Formats: sequence, structure tokens, C-alpha cells
Amino acid sequence: MMVRAFPTIGALHEAYARDSDPTLVIAELYRRMAVLDDPGIFITLRSEAEILSEIKALGPFDPKSRPLWGVPFAVKDNIDVVGLPTTAGCPDFAYKAAVDAFAVQRLRAAGAIPIGKTNLDQFATGLVGVRTPYPVPRNAIDAAYVPGGSSSGSAVAVARGLVTFALGTDTAGSGRVPAGLNNIVGLKPSLGSVSTRGVVPACRTLDTISVFASTVGDADTVFRVMQGYDPMDGFCRDLPVGGMPSRLPPRLRVGVPDASSRVFGGDALAEAAFDAAMGDLQALSEVEIVPVDMQPLFDVAALLYAGPWVAERYQAIRDVMETRPDILHPTTRRIIEGAKAYSAADAFAGQYKLAALRRAAQSILARIDLLVVPTYPRPRKLEELEVDPIGPNSELGTYTNFVNLLDLAALAVPSRFRADGFPSGVTLIAGRGQDGLLASLGMRLHAAAGVMLGASTTPVPEAPVGQATAVGDEIEVVVVGAHLSGMPLNGELVRRGARFLRATKTKPYYRLLALPGGPPARPGLVRVADRRGAAIEVEVWALPAAGFGAFVADIPAPLGIGTTYLDDGSTPKGFILEPAGQDGALDISSYGGWRAYIAAL
Amino acid sequence: MMVRAFPTIGALHEAYARDSDPTLVIAELYRRMAVLDDPGIFITLRSEAEILSEIKALGPFDPKSRPLWGVPFAVKDNIDVVGLPTTAGCPDFAYKAAVDAFAVQRLRAAGAIPIGKTNLDQFATGLVGVRTPYPVPRNAIDAAYVPGGSSSGSAVAVARGLVTFALGTDTAGSGRVPAGLNNIVGLKPSLGSVSTRGVVPACRTLDTISVFASTVGDADTVFRVMQGYDPMDGFCRDLPVGGMPSRLPPRLRVGVPDASSRVFGGDALAEAAFDAAMGDLQALSEVEIVPVDMQPLFDVAALLYAGPWVAERYQAIRDVMETRPDILHPTTRRIIEGAKAYSAADAFAGQYKLAALRRAAQSILARIDLLVVPTYPRPRKLEELEVDPIGPNSELGTYTNFVNLLDLAALAVPSRFRADGFPSGVTLIAGRGQDGLLASLGMRLHAAAGVMLGASTTPVPEAPVGQATAVGDEIEVVVVGAHLSGMPLNGELVRRGARFLRATKTKPYYRLLALPGGPPARPGLVRVADRRGAAIEVEVWALPAAGFGAFVADIPAPLGIGTTYLDDGSTPKGFILEPAGQDGALDISSYGGWRAYIAAL
Repeated sequence: MMVRAFPTIGALHEAYARDSDPTLVIAELYRRMAVLDDPGIFITLRSEAEILSEIKALGPFDPKSRPLWGVPFAVKDNIDVVGLPTTAGCPDFAYKAAVDAFAVQRLRAAGAIPIGKTNLDQFATGLVGVRTPYPVPRNAIDAAYVPGGSSSGSAVAVARGLVTFALGTDTAGSGRVPAGLNNIVGLKPSLGSVSTRGVVPACRTLDTISVFASTVGDADTVFRVMQGYDPMDGFCRDLPVGGMPSRLPPRLRVGVPDASSRVFGGDALAEAAFDAAMGDLQALSEVEIVPVDMQPLFDVAALLYAGPWVAERYQAIRDVMETRPDILHPTTRRIIEGAKAYSAADAFAGQYKLAALRRAAQSILARIDLLVVPTYPRPRKLEELEVDPIGPNSELGTYTNFVNLLDLAALAVPSRFRADGFPSGVTLIAGRGQDGLLASLGMRLHAAAGVMLGASTTPVPEAPVGQATAVGDEIEVVVVGAHLSGMPLNGELVRRGARFLRATKTKPYYRLLALPGGPPARPGLVRVADRRGAAIEVEVWALPAAGFGAFVADIPAPLGIGTTYLDDGSTPKGFILEPAGQDGALDISSYGGWRAYIAAL
Repeated sequence: MMVRAFPTIGALHEAYARDSDPTLVIAELYRRMAVLDDPGIFITLRSEAEILSEIKALGPFDPKSRPLWGVPFAVKDNIDVVGLPTTAGCPDFAYKAAVDAFAVQRLRAAGAIPIGKTNLDQFATGLVGVRTPYPVPRNAIDAAYVPGGSSSGSAVAVARGLVTFALGTDTAGSGRVPAGLNNIVGLKPSLGSVSTRGVVPACRTLDTISVFASTVGDADTVFRVMQGYDPMDGFCRDLPVGGMPSRLPPRLRVGVPDASSRVFGGDALAEAAFDAAMGDLQALSEVEIVPVDMQPLFDVAALLYAGPWVAERYQAIRDVMETRPDILHPTTRRIIEGAKAYSAADAFAGQYKLAALRRAAQSILARIDLLVVPTYPRPRKLEELEVDPIGPNSELGTYTNFVNLLDLAALAVPSRFRADGFPSGVTLIAGRGQDGLLASLGMRLHAAAGVMLGASTTPVPEAPVGQATAVGDEIEVVVVGAHLSGMPLNGELVRRGARFLRATKTKPYYRLLALPGGPPARPGLVRVADRRGAAIEVEVWALPAAGFGAFVADIPAPLGIGTTYLDDGSTPKGFILEPAGQDGALDISSYGGWRAYIAAL
């Protein structure tokens, strides 16, 4: 039995469910590697036998307790996997990892199997993928182009269907640019949501572990498994990362670069591809486009390499820089040596400058829910890098460099291919903790693009419509009258961050009363003790806990919030009525709902 | 009419209310200054006439709309007051301020009147108060001792009763050490809760504006007026600072230095004074003492001067350091020149070290609600500083230096005097945003110490029992049954951050029902339509909005949350009952409350 389709988590698990022996599935992946013959992807590859014995040790196929059971993944070679060398792309720096990185531990506990360590721009310094003493991984779509970096091998491994997902790291864009250049998804989580313990640092205050996958769903699943607070990582944060909303909120304000902020390096095909993606975005009924001036963000981006943050890279390999700089790639060395020009006072001055720029950026971000930008201005060719190893690299970071400095989350997704057959991509960016919102929109945009997965001929799956339920600290509330969508008090919900979940009915044992008083006219929903009543039309909304608290606090007597028994078996919070509130009220149950009653008035 | 008592806000407002002409009150303060004849306190003093004309411009006495109406205050001379020079203790650096600092603006808008600019350790670098080219302010209690710094003039001005309050700044302890040395209160707010726009920076990432006052109540009032988000200060944060609880939570876990962490520099009197304060602390019934190992905090403290943060001080006056360092006080210059030894890589390395130490500190702080430490190990004399200008200064920061690096709030309050008649003090420390909790305990400790205010013979007022109502985003909730204090479900409230406000009764038109089911047994409170019912005993608790939301979400049918009409005229949220819930319930209204009913069972 072979995995003919692209090895998404779903496709693999389907194969495992059909045939509990994963030998042939793994064999197929190793066969692909052999056929591909790209020695630049992996720096260290584990043997097929080792992988199979690790899967065997997982016990029987059990995707429920191990959501990544038997899922092979690749690990960027600046992240520790026990027993394997960590080179960070610098053979003379290599050490054998004594333990798994924290994130790898969590993935393994969920049943995922690391198959090897992938190539990268040395010490994760670069966005091109060519700054390595190992062979350069070939771009999965067109070998004339750079594979992108620094997580070059991880991105190509996923795009080629050699693994289901791969870990990268992302400080300046290393988890997004190579995703865009290889037609896959690159998820850069909120800073500190995934422990970076066991990672060779680039800029410790800005480093994140990122996920490459062929679909947004897979990337999100992997992220959920590996995120979580690690008290032993001083930069890890106990950060609520919102769940993926099954539906987009109505009137989602999506910022896009305004006319002055569109940077494509003169590449008309890149510009046209971004416009096509904008078309897909505008076609989503929930989306309101808001053009934004990106200049404050570009100003932040400029700080990353033309400022003291390069000293973090120096500090990360200080011993190498001070005792044996000759072991470094010449371009890497040249960049990191730049740190010597900066004093501690300069480092703080940079932070002050960033604090000021952050305010300017916040005033932009406050007006939108998220931002959609090109993943990079234009793809660049290997031959261009030979002429100028730094300029094209800097350009690739135009839309990525500012993201970690501003503590934002980002998700790179493929968009429609360019007219010349090379992929293009967009990156969704939002405030920290909004990872779920990005995934929800990203999945829809990816589906709308209708492209193939990575370098394969497997089409992107349709965005699933998940169950519309509360996530995170949200609380579901059933509304029956003036708070229904379009009704006079609906704004009380919306301004407290509520999102619509579903329209449904109560169990058939309620009475609906029109209460005296108003405006606005209000109903009372009364559960009937003897269960002889009607099913009443209601809407279920989700409110964040604090917003729910404030909402409840504002409800006037004789109304209150109790428990509502819904037709679908759920029992969310919802409006109830004090017994005294029944006096003088009119039974309107026969209308079946407040809307019908109001319409009949 | 004269202000014979110490000029607290209350005493001044009482005087103003008796005699709407504040001329004599202000004259008395200026007379005190003349008698005192300490030229070291003020660097710039405004004229009495100017102050009176500014008060006149406020209009009639109106403490309601202007809570600081006519309250004179002093401003440390590194904070801008429009039209006055800002020297930062360095005459050759001085500039005339074009606008008020943001905090001064807010205080003026509330009716407070800045009377002058006070002396300080130059560029706020020091804890002694002697590093100034101006005359050194005399310690308000005993002129042999240092006044403490860096906010020396501000602390002495308050201790002498020349002003009601004074602004300091606090990076390493400058708002606490001089409070301790002059027997007054020093409030160091949560980092970023007060804008530092218009302040000459010391360490911009760590600077706070602090408040000196003779009582905790006054300090808290001033802090509440001046705090608030300033989008133009890159380091200001939109930080909820909890209100001052009118009562302490039961079982308040108060950390104190364990045997290995008690540092008094061999001063037995200092040690005895701290033990006396510990006695006052233990006498509070709400308090549980938890000895803690302070070493991780001391390790953080060591970073502040023996690490790259001194480069922030360099950056703050870089132009001076690089073009005319000769204008500096020799000790200040010597300290700040230390920054030259640090590279940008060192600066980041320091931040990494702090991030790791912060974790160790967090594991201590997670076990307690707040920490009580000596404000300093021992008071030091002027003559000691002549011998060694740095050592005693460093020692004074033992219990203060770590606070801002760990993003904590602190409050220094006087405790009992030493056997030699010199004051001693303790500092209360808690996580950011816990400023209100510190004030609540601080007020009680100050009252328990029973000392005089500052250098006066006015005794500290008793800790008032404030109005027990919700503050900030809290929501009041009326409980009537199993959630009452001591009842089985009270923990549902407490674990969500609830605090007890008051015990009271409903309006006399309720019925109390014992519902079928349980355990736990639960009552239902039913408002009677014809108003023929009983007044039922209830408790009112306050829950933060999010906690309230979660609390409501967990209430099972047929109970819910609606509006309760209380005897005191208030109508907080409280338990209601669905009409269907009345079936099979027993009317127990005659017991007057759930406690009486349960006791009778």
C-alpha cells in the first residue's frame, strides 16, 4: 500500500487506518527521497529502519491519544534531536544533542517521528538558503530560484512530500520566505508561545520555532501540539493562543499595503499575483479591505539588521566569533561581525527607537484585525545571489523583518501561481495570540487559490466548516430577542467581542413572552415545568469571559442569565426570566420566535 | 487660620472648607520653609504669590471635581514643570521645560499646585542624596544621616511638612530608600502605569515616577490621579492597576526574608526594628507568613549596576558623556563611565541572564501574594559616604534594586522607630498591577506602627475602613446560599479572584426557597411580584469581569444571575430562579436566611 496522495496528516492516518503496518508508507517516503536525489535537503537523515522501529514503539495506531501518530517530520538543524548532531549549518560547530528540544519532545509525545535534520542558512542568518557549506537545497518548484531560508531544507522537504511537516525557526522571516518560495504553508507563532529551549539561538529575544506544512490545517495541528508554557525557557510566555474560529467574524477588517506601500522590486508578475490574491480576499463576504501605510512597519524592519539586534547573533556564537571565526561561512561572518560596531548604549538606544516605532505601528494595527501582505516582494534566482549575496536577501525580508520585533503572529500561505508558473504567496499578520484567526482566514485563502500542494499534483483541500462552538475562554450565550443579529441590542454583544456561532431552536418546552415596557421591546423565555411548550428560534453567540461578565452585569431585571436547553442537545448560558417577570406579559410562543412576532406587529 | 496638623490632603481640604481663602494655609507652608532654612531641598522654588495666583485660577474650592484642589506638591528636578528649569542635579545640563511632564499635567488638572523642583543625586544615579553639586538636603529626622536618594529633596520636603506630596523617580530604589530614611511613605508604581514623558531618563526601560506622601492614603490618591495610558510614551502600558481593597483578603500569603536572607550590615538596631515590624505584620489576622529565600532576587539586584544596564544611564546623557563629561559630579561620572566597558552583545547577554533569573524569582513569587522586606539594611551616615562614596550606596539598594528589573510594584512605609530614635521602614512588593493590594496592607502596617508622620508630631491616622464596593472592572454579585463565606461553594468565588465586600439584606420582598436536589443543598431567591415577602440575609462579593463571566457560566439550572434589590438601595447582580425551579421547593423565608435554615436542620 502506498501513499499516492500528498502525505498530509489526514492522508497518512487514512493509510494507517486501512493498513496498520506503516512499513510501506514509510518506504514510499524514503523511495521518494532516493528518486529526488537532492543532497542539500538533509544534513543528517535517520535510516528507514530506525524510523520504523520508532513507530513500532508507539504501539497500535491510535490517533486519538496520539494525534501525530506515525507522522514523519523534519527538523531544522539548529534544533536539537537527541542523539543527532546539531550543526546549525556549521560543521565545525556541531555537537551531539543530549536531549530533544522541548518542542520536539512534545511532538514525539504526540506520536510524530523526526526523520532527520535539515539544511539552513548558517546560524539561521539569511533568507536565501544559499549561505551554507553543504549543497544548497534545490527550490522545489524551479531550481533556478533560491530555495529561501534560513529554513531551506525544511521547506523543500515539505514541498517535495518527503515529510508531513517540518520545523523551522523564524527570527526575521526564515519560517515564511521559504514557504512562499516553495508553495507551502509557513506558520510563525506568537513569540514565546513555543519554547525555544534546545534551539541554537539567532536573536534570543526574537526567535520562534515555526512550522512548515502543506496545509494550514496540518500546520495549525502541529502548532497546537508543540505550544505551551515552558518555565525553563526564560523567553517562553504563558500566552493564550486563540483557537481557530470555524467561521470568520463578520466585517473582518483586513489591512493591505496602500498604493505607496506596494513593494515588488519592479516585478510585474509578482504584483499581478498579489492582485490576484487580493481578488480572492475581497471575494470573502466577511472581509472589509483597509489600505494601510506600511512605512512605520518598514521602519521597524530596518532596525533588525541595520541596528544593534545583530549583536544578539554575535552573542549567540560569541565564542566562535572570538576564537575561530574562520569556521564561518564568509557571508555569515561578514554580517555578524557588524555587531562589533555597537556598544551597550547603542543596544538600549535601539530598544528606545523600537519602543517609539511600536507606537506608530500600533496606531495602524488598532484599525484592523489583521494584515495581508506579499510574503516577499519577488522571488530571486541563484545567479543573482552570486553577484550580490546581501542585497536580494535584504529585499526578501521586506514584509517579514518587522513581525517579531512588533510581537506579531504570522502565517504564510500559497496564493495563485504567477503567469510564469512560479508560485506566489501572501502572509497574514496579526497581534500576538491571534494565531487561530490567522489560520481560519489562511485556510480560506489557500482554498480560494485552488493551487496544488507544494511541488505535487495534489490539490489543496477545501476549507472545512468546523463546528461553530466557543473556543478558549469564550462562553456561549443564547439570545432570543433584542440581541438577535440585526436587532436593536445586537451591538451590546458585538462591542464586547462576541462572534456569531449558529442559529438554532430550543428544546420544545419553552414559552416565549412579550414583556411589558420598552423600548426596546424585549421577550422573556420561560422553561415550562411540565414540558408542554414550543421550540423557540434562538441564536448562539460566543463572548470572551470578561465580555460575557460585563454583558451579564448590564442585563436589567426581570431578565437574567441561566441555562438554555437547545434542540441540538447543548445547554449553553442564555436568557431566563424571574417568576415575577411573567406578570403582565403576553404569551407569543405560537410565533415560534421573536423575529416572527416583530414582523407580524 | 493655620494648618497646625501635617498638611495631608484631608487636613488641607478641611482647612480650605472652613475658610475658602487658602492664603493663610500657603503662607504657613512658606513660613515653615523659611524657618527650616535648608537650602538643599529645593533647586528651584516658585514664589508664594505665584502659587496663590495659581490656586485662585482654580476657581472656588471644589474637591469633588478636583480631588487635589489647592494641594501643594514638589517635583524632583528631573521631571519637567513648564517654565521652570530642569537641572537633573547638573546645572550645566539645565534646560527650561516647554511643557509639563504628562504626570504633572494630570496632577495640575486635578487641582494640585507644583511649588518647586527638588534636589537629587545627579541624573538620579544614587541612593544616598549626596551626589549633587547643590547643598545636600538634611535628613528630616537626624542630620547625621544621609537624606537618601536619588529623590532626596522630594522626600525631605514631605517629611518636613512643606508639601503634601512630592514626585520622585524610582529606577533602583530612589522612591523608596529616601522614604525609609525620612519616615514617610514612598509609592513606586507598576512599571509603565505612569507615563515618564517629560522625565530625564536614568534607565528608560526601568524608570518610574514615584510618589512621596506622609500617608498611604495620600500616596494612593496621587497615584490614581496621575496613572493612565499615554500613547506617546513608548514604555507606558495600558495596565489595570487594581483598586485598593477595603479589606485584606483572608489568608494573605506574605513572604518575608528567611534566616539566610536577612541583611542588616551588622546593625542590631535595624534588625530589631524589622522584627518589630514583623510583629505588627503577624498581628494582622489575615496574614500568613511565608519565609522565602531572597537569593534569586539579590542576584537580579546585582545586575543593575554590575551589568550592562548602566549603559542606559550612559545613553540618557550620551551627548554629555562624549562632549563635556567634566560638567558631571565626579562620582556620577565614574559610575556612568563604567558603561563604556559593555558591548551591544553584553547588553543582550545581560537581558538573557535576567530572563533566566526572572524564572527563579517567579517560582518564589508564585507561592506568595506579596513580599515584605526592610526598605534598606541599615541607615548610613554622611561621614561614611565621605570615606566610601559607593559601598554604602550599593548596600542601601539591597532590597530595592531587583524590583523594577522584575516588573514588580512596591510601597515603602514607615515602621516602628529604632531604639536610638531613628525611623525604620519596610517595603511591600508585589506583581505588577497589585498596587492596590500593597496600599491596603501598607495602610494597616503604617497604622499598626503608630508612628508620627515624617518629622512631625502628627500621629499616623488609623487605617480607614473604606466603602466596600466593586472597583475597576469588578462586578458585584449577591450570594445567598452555598456561596456564602464558609459554605461549601464559597471556593467557587475565591478561586476566581472574588473579594468579600459586605453582609446585608435584600429589600423585604423576597421569598427564600430550599430547592430539591443536592448536595450541596441550594436555595432559590424569588422576588415576589406583589412585594409581600421577607428581607433575606445575603453577602455581596466583588468578582473581576472575567471571573464573574466564568462564575455565571458554571451556574446550573434552574439558577441563574439577574438583579437583586438590596436593603441599602443598591441593585447588584445576584442569584435568580427560573419559574420552573419553584416546583417542589420549600419556602424557608421565615428563617430570614440560608445560614439560619442550615443551622436549624
